[in-house]
Amino acid sequence: MTSHAPITPDLTALTATEALSLMAQGRLTSRALVTACLDRVRQRDGEVRAWLALSETALEQADRCDATPNAERGRLHGLPIGVKDVFDTFDLPTTHNSPLYQSFQPAADAAVVDLLRSEGAIILGKTDTTEFAAAGQDARTANPHDLAHTPGGSSAGSAAAVADRHVPLALSTQTGGSTIRPASFCGIVGFKPSVSRVSREGVKVYAQSFDTVGWYGRSVDDVALLASILGLDEALHSTDRPGHLRIAITSGPYRDRLASESLMALDLSKARLETQGHSVQTIELPAEFEALDRHHRVILHREGQASFRNLARRHGAALHDDFHHRVENRDGSSLLDLAKAYDAMAMGRIAFDALMQDFDLLIAPSAPGFAPLGRRPGDPVFNASWTLLGVPCLNIPVPLGHPSLPIGVTLIAARFADQHLLDAARRLEPVLNPK
Amino acid sequence: MTSHAPITPDLTALTATEALSLMAQGRLTSRALVTACLDRVRQRDGEVRAWLALSETALEQADRCDATPNAERGRLHGLPIGVKDVFDTFDLPTTHNSPLYQSFQPAADAAVVDLLRSEGAIILGKTDTTEFAAAGQDARTANPHDLAHTPGGSSAGSAAAVADRHVPLALSTQTGGSTIRPASFCGIVGFKPSVSRVSREGVKVYAQSFDTVGWYGRSVDDVALLASILGLDEALHSTDRPGHLRIAITSGPYRDRLASESLMALDLSKARLETQGHSVQTIELPAEFEALDRHHRVILHREGQASFRNLARRHGAALHDDFHHRVENRDGSSLLDLAKAYDAMAMGRIAFDALMQDFDLLIAPSAPGFAPLGRRPGDPVFNASWTLLGVPCLNIPVPLGHPSLPIGVTLIAARFADQHLLDAARRLEPVLNPK
Repeated sequence: MTSHAPITPDLTALTATEALSLMAQGRLTSRALVTACLDRVRQRDGEVRAWLALSETALEQADRCDATPNAERGRLHGLPIGVKDVFDTFDLPTTHNSPLYQSFQPAADAAVVDLLRSEGAIILGKTDTTEFAAAGQDARTANPHDLAHTPGGSSAGSAAAVADRHVPLALSTQTGGSTIRPASFCGIVGFKPSVSRVSREGVKVYAQSFDTVGWYGRSVDDVALLASILGLDEALHSTDRPGHLRIAITSGPYRDRLASESLMALDLSKARLETQGHSVQTIELPAEFEALDRHHRVILHREGQASFRNLARRHGAALHDDFHHRVENRDGSSLLDLAKAYDAMAMGRIAFDALMQDFDLLIAPSAPGFAPLGRRPGDPVFNASWTLLGVPCLNIPVPLGHPSLPIGVTLIAARFADQHLLDAARRLEPVLNPK
Repeated sequence: MTSHAPITPDLTALTATEALSLMAQGRLTSRALVTACLDRVRQRDGEVRAWLALSETALEQADRCDATPNAERGRLHGLPIGVKDVFDTFDLPTTHNSPLYQSFQPAADAAVVDLLRSEGAIILGKTDTTEFAAAGQDARTANPHDLAHTPGGSSAGSAAAVADRHVPLALSTQTGGSTIRPASFCGIVGFKPSVSRVSREGVKVYAQSFDTVGWYGRSVDDVALLASILGLDEALHSTDRPGHLRIAITSGPYRDRLASESLMALDLSKARLETQGHSVQTIELPAEFEALDRHHRVILHREGQASFRNLARRHGAALHDDFHHRVENRDGSSLLDLAKAYDAMAMGRIAFDALMQDFDLLIAPSAPGFAPLGRRPGDPVFNASWTLLGVPCLNIPVPLGHPSLPIGVTLIAARFADQHLLDAARRLEPVLNPK
């Protein structure tokens, strides 16, 4: 089932946290780490195709990092990171995987990229994506666990690059399910923070109510590190954490679209958590939550109408028809539908926060099932409602106990409980994803 | 009281609609219009200081426009337009009036700028603004009606440029009151559309829930023209318009901060409208609306925290302290305050739409009073709640019947009733602002 080489204890197997610790101790150079990552890309990317562009100055940047005294080093000093090709980068083209942007070179970094670089990160390159992180052209990226399968989208390249150990961390985005679903398909940790807590400036806009910067790592520690740098290490409440977590679990409201492996991942999660003494209560979501996916689509396509209007006017048929679909409002939603969708979103946010008064976490499916064959991004039905609700979501792989493609579950917390979610995920990681 | 020359029937006195009509008839060239605008800037801008940069190719662009056959012309063909210097432009620096961006040259246009150009507009230059359209450094622009007074901010330069007839139309933004208040201070029509209906891509981000592209003209027809190009000419409902409008009017909930001239503008508006047979009912806003300004500030500063984080990290003390204030959350709001503010915003939107079931329009103050002395942007308390509610707002000048600085009132409609608001404003313009 798996086509990549067995994991060897080489430098590409280090997590970001491990590599940074070794570099701080002087036991690893940035040059050695970047070299190992570039070698891995060279070996693997002919098949995986995670990357649209690689930095030509990464080794020079690494050498400058290695020459910097410890006292002047940032929190990501010398660490190679991948960036989805919808983030502006001043030193690499930003193509959005669109034929209209093949030669586009931004003048400045997206705000998040700028922040990571100011902490010493080395942007190793740009990763493939569904066109504009929205629709149109698929990424060419393969799932590193089985090249015939999709890694999921839209953050295809970032997910595959982290899963295949080309880089320890990579930036993604999520507007529907573009971070969480590829994480499930590729067997890595993916994190989408609460809405509006991280700058999206310099990231391609699709739907301004939903677009959220996310990221991938191979451990919860690694995604928590980036969360901390981006200011998400702030407590929502100061309750003393009980010895055991109060966990809700649900397969609904789209249960009939779940394949057996996703149901198995949920059952295994419940069993593993209960073995550790956590309380796991199977719940039904409020009935009105079933409509959230429909409201998500109304807002998505109407906000997309505004986002792609100028490209449709300027480029005509050279712009993929999917975007003309948005601009022309071919769904035919009315402005009253749009107002209703926004209001349902707001009421859903209030209802979900109330539901989560009784729980530390909710566990739900990350995807309908294993990564499908092909290169399509996959169905976002199990992700879009959470994106609409603006709540923090984290995919954690849940091995099924027998050889298979990866699958994960989504850990979800109340809005702005990002830090609590990451703390809980750190505790649950060895339980849900035993090595 | 006024220091500028009396209005003469020169080309700079044409509205956009008039100029476009004359150009379509072959009675006016773009070159003649652009030349007249540039001459006016040359005469006046030493004192008014509306502009941070002027296009060096505007006349060449005008000549290309004049050589284009009618059939190939866009809806803004050959029309000079001003752009607030927080919009990216590929051919002019974008400084955000920040010392950190003095030499910044974007690689591409903001989406709205691109759309206007694709309709044939000529971007005449970039106008001064409060730093990042947020805080920090004030614009240097003077109020063209009295140079000792502020034109208001943050869209200072765009408002002054339109008021002083440097251009017929100019782009602005609004996050608190940055479009409507300067329109009142400068005696022009200012329009802020409903939230999320116009792309903000390529516009400096301050608060992602509020930032809205707006624009200025010297007639309702002109602002309606840009609204149509940006897709806002879509009806929210299909009610037959009655012969007379049902209008609500309010001075609250911050009545004690209104100077006499603002109260007079409201009273005069009521009297003039009733004379025309419209129903004008003085109303009190729901009690909970008084808290909206406070919620606005919580969201504004918390979203600003995310927006300025990278600049604070990279530039330290070279970044104005106002932005460190946001990044460090010196207001001390909690994440629970933030969630409450978002929920109050959502509930307020629902409550306002319900209130507007009985009215075609609400009229409210645009500013506490006349433009103050100096260069500060002014108090946004009469604008921020409407921005928070996401509703369309239009400032219309209301001459007080004796020589004075300008003042206006805000016409407000239900969320997404932009087209109804513009239609009503077109009808009421000769009543409220008789020439």
